[in-house]
Formats: sequence, structure tokens, C-alpha cells
Amino acid sequence: MTSSADAEPATLLDAARSGDRSALARLLSKVERGGAEARSVSEVTHELVGRATTVGITGAPGAGKSTLTSSLVREMRSSDVAVGVLAIDPSSPFTGGAILGDRVRMDEHVLDDDVFIRSMATRGHLGGLSVAVPDAARVLDAVGMEWVLIETVGVGQVEVEIAGEADTTIVVVNPGWGDTVQANKAGLMEIADIFVVNKADRAGVDETVSDLERMLSLRSGSEWRPLVIRTIATEGVGASQLWEAIQQHGEWSRSSGEFERRRTVRREQELRRIVNSLMAARVEELASGEAWRRASDDIAALRLDPWAAANGLLD
Amino acid sequence: MTSSADAEPATLLDAARSGDRSALARLLSKVERGGAEARSVSEVTHELVGRATTVGITGAPGAGKSTLTSSLVREMRSSDVAVGVLAIDPSSPFTGGAILGDRVRMDEHVLDDDVFIRSMATRGHLGGLSVAVPDAARVLDAVGMEWVLIETVGVGQVEVEIAGEADTTIVVVNPGWGDTVQANKAGLMEIADIFVVNKADRAGVDETVSDLERMLSLRSGSEWRPLVIRTIATEGVGASQLWEAIQQHGEWSRSSGEFERRRTVRREQELRRIVNSLMAARVEELASGEAWRRASDDIAALRLDPWAAANGLLD
Repeated sequence: MTSSADAEPATLLDAARSGDRSALARLLSKVERGGAEARSVSEVTHELVGRATTVGITGAPGAGKSTLTSSLVREMRSSDVAVGVLAIDPSSPFTGGAILGDRVRMDEHVLDDDVFIRSMATRGHLGGLSVAVPDAARVLDAVGMEWVLIETVGVGQVEVEIAGEADTTIVVVNPGWGDTVQANKAGLMEIADIFVVNKADRAGVDETVSDLERMLSLRSGSEWRPLVIRTIATEGVGASQLWEAIQQHGEWSRSSGEFERRRTVRREQELRRIVNSLMAARVEELASGEAWRRASDDIAALRLDPWAAANGLLD
Repeated sequence: MTSSADAEPATLLDAARSGDRSALARLLSKVERGGAEARSVSEVTHELVGRATTVGITGAPGAGKSTLTSSLVREMRSSDVAVGVLAIDPSSPFTGGAILGDRVRMDEHVLDDDVFIRSMATRGHLGGLSVAVPDAARVLDAVGMEWVLIETVGVGQVEVEIAGEADTTIVVVNPGWGDTVQANKAGLMEIADIFVVNKADRAGVDETVSDLERMLSLRSGSEWRPLVIRTIATEGVGASQLWEAIQQHGEWSRSSGEFERRRTVRREQELRRIVNSLMAARVEELASGEAWRRASDDIAALRLDPWAAANGLLD
């Protein structure tokens, strides 16, 4: 019964820590559903978290993020570290941990017990991913994944935010001026610790690298000068340099205090988002209740003004 | 002391109702600042509201909305009705009821006691306008304005929402195919009760009108077939037809029940927004408190999980 659908989070966690992948998938589904279920998972994982390092990977659709992630996972596995991948797709109607669409490129890892790949979508709950992704990363951390890669499908606001809230953030672009301009517009210059110019066998790669270097030289306010790595992800070219760059950023980040600073900021943001999501749930509950209907009638009849009615509802 | 800066809302309201424009401006400033000040104004105005009819005017920047509004005000004044204008500019750093920028075109009305024009901006408070604009419209209603025109500067999401939540909504376009396509994209086809093709002395006006008619013929689900009016606002051409169209829509709306239906929906939305803004204010208050700091420390030390900490803060 370790991984039956209604198993307790504690039972599922024990099973997942012993290598039961279906138990792990069920824990992540609970996290994805939010609310009381997410809370029940958070209760059992929280004492085990804090060891995994997170890496955000973002960039425009078609930049080759998925293939790059796959080649990075292969490289990391040759260092024998356990890796979890969360593939964030806000617009996808599919969820449930299946290996979907682009995920198929990660097929080579499905038989590797120390790699776990999961697609996450919103289930229509705006902003839900901002709460669910850190929760899911904590689950992967608690079951012993040493690294958690968080890959976004596009560069929407929520996706950039999620990728930016990692210990190390990688921004993937392709050769061509348009890409770096778009990256700049989407706010990616600010969040990148490492730039990857993927499809580096294409024309214009040197110009793109120097464009990036020039833009980065204008960036101020940080001691870290983002690294620019060339890759051809389909052939695995550049993956070892990228893995080295990630470790290099990690060392700098830990020794400079940036690592701890970011984690503190992230904890604050997470707490605030969870408080806001609980508040929103309470408003929804209020809005379907009898008191709300009465308040609404009182406003219509000019017996109450909207502010007084709102205050009355909250008290 | 009727209109001194710290006067009570009740005192200001009495003064404003007797024609003191500076008292009216002060009431609107209180509304714009939100929170307790907005609430204090809402308390004194709410028994006097419900008589004014609101008209939303939206369309792309440069469509001539401001000039059109001015020529409409002139037309309405010839029917001797009292008119308030709220010009919504989410991005403007200027506030405070001054006649700014485009407002200069409304100069002709500044000496008319039965016209009051006010620019409103957000003061950086996202979504703040969605609460402040209906509050401000209620103030104008309470001081005796029979009509309140709510004119947006652009077609951003909040602006479209605000203009769409009026008793009658006017969408302004110019001759040229691009405009109607953009209007469609911005969700303006759905909210328009009346289309104005302004700058109707320009080439392409006939095509634009037939494009609109064709698009409107595809619209289903409403008994009201939006009117299409041609204007040359700079010369006042079409203003009387527009004023007639507004009254025609008003008659249909009242007799069909649409008027009351919209007002009910609006009251619900307003109540929800005010509840949300009060909730957000409570989260901000919480976040600056001692309990929040302790919760944050407990999460960092793994003594509490974020969900338990959030729940603890809310209880």
C-alpha cells in the first residue's frame, strides 16, 4: 500500500526515499493540487530539505532548452550526482508527471534511478506554479536529489520569475541578434548567472557572443560576471563546460555569501506567496457564503457602503 | 475651513454639494489614496449614490478620445445635464486633479460649474485604479453629477476593464483596417455598446465602418446591436449623434433589464476588489511584523514548513 492513491504523505515519502518512483510522482501530484494537500506534503518533507542545489533554465521557445537540459543531465550523471528535473509549462493542459512533448528527448534517462523528470502545469490556477514549483523542488530535495533543474518552456513572466529564483540561473539563446534583444526585453539579462548560446554551429554565433559580452559589460551591481558558454546540445557539445560553469558559479556564490542571501530572499517570497494563496482561498470561501450575499444586498439597497461591507466580511 | 486639507469627508461632501470644487477635488484625492481615507469617503457618499449614469470611453492612444470627450461634454451641456469626467492614466506620474497634457483640450469647460474634470493615476499601486475609479465615480454621483464619463488613455488590461464596467461603453477607432484589428485583439469588440469612428474625414472611413459592421454581425449572445457613429471630434461633427446613441442605449438597457444586470455584476466585482485590497493590506502589515520575522526564522532553521508558518501567521 506504500504508493496507493490515498496513502499518507509520510508513507509516500518513506517509499520515495527508498526509490519508489510512483510514490514520488504521487507526492508531486499532491503538491501540484495545492491547498491542504500541498500542506500535508510540506509538513513531512521540511525537516529533510536544504541540501539540493537548484538550477533554473530559461529562454525563448525553440532555443533548445529541453535538449540542453538532457545533455546537461547526462554530463551530471557522469559525475554520479542524483538529478531531478522540473519542466514548467504554464500553458500545458497536461500534467501528472508524464514525459510529454519535448520531454521525449529525455527518454534516455527514464531507466536511470537517479534521474527523475516531471512536467508541471498550472491546472488553470494563475500564480499557482509560483507556489507549486518551490514545493516540488523541496520534495525532490527531501528524497535525496542533490541537484534540481527547473526548466521553463517559455519566457512568460511567471516562468522568468521561477527560473530566476534558483541558486544558479541559466539563460539559453541562439545565434542571431534578435534573440539577445528579446532576452534583454524579457528581463533575462538581470537574472542570468550563465548564458548558453546553443546551436553554436549556426551562423552568427561569434556576433551573438560578443553582443552578450557587451551587454554584460554594461551590467553593474554584481560582483559575478556571467559566463557565456557555447553549446550544440543535440551533439552534447559544451555540456561539460556548462556543468563546470554551474559548479564555478556555485563556489563563488557560496563563498561570497550570495547563495545564502538568495535563499533568504526566496524563503521570504515563498512565505508571502503561500500567505497570499491562503488569503485568496479565504476570499473565495467568503464569496460563496451567506454573509457575502447579505453584504451584496446591503450595498445594492444603499444600507452599507462597499468598504464597510468588505470590512464587515473580513471581521 | 470647509475645504482645508484635513477636513472631515462629511464636511467636504456638504461643501462639494454646494458647488465648492476644491472640496470635491479633496474628496477625490482621498479616494485615490485608498485604504482608510477611501473608506471614510465611501461612508458619507453611499446614501447619495445610484443616480448618475456612467459612460466608459476607450480606444488606442491617438484615436482622439480626449477631443471626442470634450465635444461630447459640450453637446451634453447643451442639454443642461451636469457632467463629471474621470480621465484614467495608469502610467502617468501626475495626479491631483490637474488638467494635464491632453486635458488641455477640455479647457473650454473649466469655467463651467456643472462640468468637473479629473485625471486619475495609480500612484504605483497596481490594480488600485480598479478600486479607485468606481469610488471616484460614486463621489461625482453623490455631489450631483448626472453623467460620469470615464475616459481611458490607452487600451491596457486595467483600462479596458474599467471602461467596460460602465452603464454604456464607447470604443473609439480611426479609419484604417489596423485599428479595428487592434480593437478586436484588445477585447474591445465584446465591451462596445457604441463604436465611434473618429477622424471620419480621413480616407478609408467607409471601409472601417463596414469592417466594424461585419465584425458586429458575427457577435452573438446580446440583443443589443452596437451602433457605429462617425465623428470629427476636432470640429464637433457627430457629437449630437453620439449623445443620441448614448441615450438610445440607455433606454434599451433600462427597459431590457441589462442596466440592472450590469450594475449587479459591478457591485459584486467592486466588493471582491475591495475585500482583496483589504486582504493585501493585511498581508503587508503582517509582513512587517515581529511574528512574520519569527516565522521566517523558523522556516530557515527547518523548525517549521512554509505552509504551517503561513497558516500560523493567518490565525
